[in-house]
Amino acid sequence: MIAVLKKKATEPQKQHLIEWFEMKGLKVHVSEGEFNTVLGIIGDTTELDTDMIGLLDIVESVKRISEPYKSANRQFHPENTSIKVQNAVIGDGELTIMAGPCSVESEDQIMTIAKAVKAAGATMLRGGTFKPRTSPYAFQGMRAEGIRLLKQAGDSVGLPIVTEIMNADHLEYFEDVDIIQVGARNMQNFELLKALGKVNKPILIKRGMASTIKELLMSAEYVMAGGNEQVILCERGIRTFETATRNTFDLSAVPVLKKLTHLPIIVDPSHATGKHDLVPPMSLAGVACGADGLMIEVHNQPEKALSDGPQSLRPEEFEALMARIIKVKEAIS
Amino acid sequence: MIAVLKKKATEPQKQHLIEWFEMKGLKVHVSEGEFNTVLGIIGDTTELDTDMIGLLDIVESVKRISEPYKSANRQFHPENTSIKVQNAVIGDGELTIMAGPCSVESEDQIMTIAKAVKAAGATMLRGGTFKPRTSPYAFQGMRAEGIRLLKQAGDSVGLPIVTEIMNADHLEYFEDVDIIQVGARNMQNFELLKALGKVNKPILIKRGMASTIKELLMSAEYVMAGGNEQVILCERGIRTFETATRNTFDLSAVPVLKKLTHLPIIVDPSHATGKHDLVPPMSLAGVACGADGLMIEVHNQPEKALSDGPQSLRPEEFEALMARIIKVKEAIS
Amino acid sequence: MIAVLKKKATEPQKQHLIEWFEMKGLKVHVSEGEFNTVLGIIGDTTELDTDMIGLLDIVESVKRISEPYKSANRQFHPENTSIKVQNAVIGDGELTIMAGPCSVESEDQIMTIAKAVKAAGATMLRGGTFKPRTSPYAFQGMRAEGIRLLKQAGDSVGLPIVTEIMNADHLEYFEDVDIIQVGARNMQNFELLKALGKVNKPILIKRGMASTIKELLMSAEYVMAGGNEQVILCERGIRTFETATRNTFDLSAVPVLKKLTHLPIIVDPSHATGKHDLVPPMSLAGVACGADGLMIEVHNQPEKALSDGPQSLRPEEFEALMARIIKVKEAIS
Amino acid sequence: MIAVLKKKATEPQKQHLIEWFEMKGLKVHVSEGEFNTVLGIIGDTTELDTDMIGLLDIVESVKRISEPYKSANRQFHPENTSIKVQNAVIGDGELTIMAGPCSVESEDQIMTIAKAVKAAGATMLRGGTFKPRTSPYAFQGMRAEGIRLLKQAGDSVGLPIVTEIMNADHLEYFEDVDIIQVGARNMQNFELLKALGKVNKPILIKRGMASTIKELLMSAEYVMAGGNEQVILCERGIRTFETATRNTFDLSAVPVLKKLTHLPIIVDPSHATGKHDLVPPMSLAGVACGADGLMIEVHNQPEKALSDGPQSLRPEEFEALMARIIKVKEAIS
Repeated sequence: MIAVLKKKATEPQKQHLIEWFEMKGLKVHVSEGEFNTVLGIIGDTTELDTDMIGLLDIVESVKRISEPYKSANRQFHPENTSIKVQNAVIGDGELTIMAGPCSVESEDQIMTIAKAVKAAGATMLRGGTFKPRTSPYAFQGMRAEGIRLLKQAGDSVGLPIVTEIMNADHLEYFEDVDIIQVGARNMQNFELLKALGKVNKPILIKRGMASTIKELLMSAEYVMAGGNEQVILCERGIRTFETATRNTFDLSAVPVLKKLTHLPIIVDPSHATGKHDLVPPMSLAGVACGADGLMIEVHNQPEKALSDGPQSLRPEEFEALMARIIKVKEAIS
Repeated sequence: MIAVLKKKATEPQKQHLIEWFEMKGLKVHVSEGEFNTVLGIIGDTTELDTDMIGLLDIVESVKRISEPYKSANRQFHPENTSIKVQNAVIGDGELTIMAGPCSVESEDQIMTIAKAVKAAGATMLRGGTFKPRTSPYAFQGMRAEGIRLLKQAGDSVGLPIVTEIMNADHLEYFEDVDIIQVGARNMQNFELLKALGKVNKPILIKRGMASTIKELLMSAEYVMAGGNEQVILCERGIRTFETATRNTFDLSAVPVLKKLTHLPIIVDPSHATGKHDLVPPMSLAGVACGADGLMIEVHNQPEKALSDGPQSLRPEEFEALMARIIKVKEAIS
Repeated sequence: MIAVLKKKATEPQKQHLIEWFEMKGLKVHVSEGEFNTVLGIIGDTTELDTDMIGLLDIVESVKRISEPYKSANRQFHPENTSIKVQNAVIGDGELTIMAGPCSVESEDQIMTIAKAVKAAGATMLRGGTFKPRTSPYAFQGMRAEGIRLLKQAGDSVGLPIVTEIMNADHLEYFEDVDIIQVGARNMQNFELLKALGKVNKPILIKRGMASTIKELLMSAEYVMAGGNEQVILCERGIRTFETATRNTFDLSAVPVLKKLTHLPIIVDPSHATGKHDLVPPMSLAGVACGADGLMIEVHNQPEKALSDGPQSLRPEEFEALMARIIKVKEAIS
Repeated sequence: MIAVLKKKATEPQKQHLIEWFEMKGLKVHVSEGEFNTVLGIIGDTTELDTDMIGLLDIVESVKRISEPYKSANRQFHPENTSIKVQNAVIGDGELTIMAGPCSVESEDQIMTIAKAVKAAGATMLRGGTFKPRTSPYAFQGMRAEGIRLLKQAGDSVGLPIVTEIMNADHLEYFEDVDIIQVGARNMQNFELLKALGKVNKPILIKRGMASTIKELLMSAEYVMAGGNEQVILCERGIRTFETATRNTFDLSAVPVLKKLTHLPIIVDPSHATGKHDLVPPMSLAGVACGADGLMIEVHNQPEKALSDGPQSLRPEEFEALMARIIKVKEAIS
């Protein structure tokens, strides 16, 4: 870490700051320039809060030389991480396609959709069971029973399953779940992340609506610091002033993340755009810029299932999209 | 709720939608116009998701006549809610001043600050104990021991205490806490909100960095729907492109909220701006636009306490600010 | 346009509003419902300001049935517009590749780059001549002389040229320019747009950093309303809280615009990301989601040309990218 | 300016960069540290583009010691600038109140409003004449005739006038205008700013919807660099995800700007919020945080004047607000 001190910093102030760094076990290299002092702070600076230091009265600027995340950092782990789930692998160069309904609604529904997405080429089955809903009066999901049905459907067609957790207390219900998802609203629920660091299952972390790419990596670091290195990142749109789409799909996050981390990155065009007719072009764009996979909402009866209609594809639309996805994947390989 | 259907909507499509509403126990009033159909949906529409309905292929636009929050809605509860905490009252027209350090660090520290803020006129003592930190490697707070010290300090000077909770599992440690705070990052941690709906203590909910004012009210509704009507709202800045301040302090939220809800509203200029020299002017602005109170960071030894220095006031600065706050409060009363 | 009136609207208030619409030459169809009044406003409502009407005290909600742009609207012009420039065509299904340096710096520089991009497969030559610079002390471009050199280079390799205009007074210098570009900062410089509506040349309008997709269309409408229907739209990133990229590249704008308008849409990954290593993946993503073309910065001596180094590709990088672009284009065709 | 170079920077690369700075007439002080090289660049660095330098491959970080604006910088001009307009002074410690209609509509209208705002205590008369409208089909203002009527009304009640310019070609019509306003959409219309740098009248620059505080200062610098040092800044809301208000009123910009510049700062709660009931509380907040003045929309017949109704105050509301404004101003003085 480099800290450039202001000209006006007094000797005692400088000394105080240097001692504070040394107290933290760091070595400080002082370079007195003609019109400023530059401190080079050497050692494990991951615990330091750059923002805080930068706001100190005597500090002109501060810059990390090494990023505050270690386990997730590609610098210390140049090889891509690939994560094995049953017979599927995420991050090995092949595309992972997680498809399924927004919510598990019934045995029939999830069975029908599971068969359809498997036939079309999906590699994992997704479905909401514990649902984060803005309104306390809205349907909160089938919860434990939903997981049971999802698992049963996944098993019957031979697809691993992925579903979202909202609270560490629910972990007991997630035993049969193959990948545990952390939703955008819980990306900085640090207590949940800590608990998932103790679990021996892959964790898929969705980027928060107002979270930077670096904050997403810090959330991955929370899980990894606990001992669980099987983390998958997911870009699903950020909140901006534009209202033509539900969120603004920040696809540049894919190549940015590829450079910073060795973890697999998937993208979710269904939630990012909120509109089913935008899902196909944005899925292709996600593949083209290098994502390791896609998460796509598919339902069988949009005209009956009001709740997840607008952003879901019909099975036949999904099948047509899969054919195009494969072509684009080949084109960039 | 009013739904305007598209011209192209077929009779069976309309019928299907109307039946769907009726199935939900709602009454639908159909108005066939020259070039469109308007549905008036009557009954308890709080469970309906406007966004979802608006995205349906046959729907041109949809608008709630009544807001999706009931308990928090000023329409159904025109009087201001005031919340009693020991001998302090929040929302009764007097200003509530919650002051104290970012983090409780030691018995000495919190005692010294408690005395100082009490002497300057604060009405509550705040202090972080369970800390939400972006980095897993950063100090996570004194936790239960911090609450014990905060309580002890509050008791000794006669101030109620407020501190943040991060997980419902920690509730056992919060027995002596007067007001439980939900941080910005947990504003949509719905499982936590549900648990706090069962608690018999005031809950202070901070607005999320990317949350709209309406979403803040929906989070209040989660707590109130559980039976706990003692909710205090807090504006603490939203995330925008501007980097001159840590967040963008959205003070207009105060009069907007005053119109929509009967709940008390306080503002936090310390976290919103992230810079101590901006805290005084923005505190005065908060009072001037009608906030019920302020949450202000105060520490005694900024030169020792690196972690909360930049945005904290020294006791003497806080005292000087209190005098100005009182003048502005009188001017608008 | 549909206006839903509030329950509390009095008869005289309603009558006043209806008369106001009629005064504007519109027909109003009143539908009195059980608990509200809905006005259907028929006629040319493009001059009405929905925001203003929606903020009236007696109006609950207002919604356009038809968009406020007419000439740019795909509804009234279902076929794609394609624009011919010399022997290049934009919007005919083939990709348009506009490549060249950020700024024209010298005869040598622009000649060398022109040859390189032509050889690699570019279809147009771009280069800044009148430069919009944040600082009054920064290099403001070679201006008229820059256009002369750009034209000479374009002619010598057989590529049409595109460069940015900042003021209608400079139009005299743009006689030899094939496509006139309006920069992001001037997207709502309405006086400039009006002047360009009188010009018989294609106009390329870049989306403003804080402009919605609909506002971009309204700016196109300004030019078209003046009689010039040769408009090309360009997505080049919007301003958000994320700082990992210079702007946030809103690629979803491509399929959204394809639905709303018949005008060609190109994307500019160089300005959107601000980093040369992100240009290749985001170019491929742009092609994959359906853009009609790309605008890419290429320079020959990045180590000498400090000003446009960071986001520019070297000729050999551009050549390698072109090969990949062609593959992705084939994959989606 | 301080540039920290990356460890991997080679000696020739460093030398090349140093020479480039020296070529610009700057002195470079090299400090070779144990694990990095820090360049201190001394001299007039206002022409350098920090962003560009920061993106160079060999540069780790770059930070200005001095800001890129000189004339607007408080560091070089510690005293507040106050601007005299007829018998009014802006920035001398007294509040400036610019009030009037959104648009000048008729002689009667502007006369009636001028009398009302003068009687209530306004110190300047505002009114739109050349109107920047999103739609080419909307009313574009009374233009030159509007200025004539505004001037006549101002003269008759003894108030200086302020109105917006959209194009330097219109300057001839602005001879009688006391303060020329640059609207938010033209804040980075650099050609217009340059032209206004040659004018001998105060220029009021509104912050762009997606412009940072520093960019606003750079726009002021454009005018000042041309020789016109009479610049007034105006905060009028920025664009964010929140839709409860038209824009997000960034009042913290006032104390931030007070620190960075000596220029007067006014705020516009009418455009920032877009709702008349939010204008009074946010006006008081603006005064409380230290603004030099307010710009407030007032109209006489909101029920007739559909176009500027929603955000305008009636004369009697404005009068009541003035009384409260005076009290808050006294409280903070």
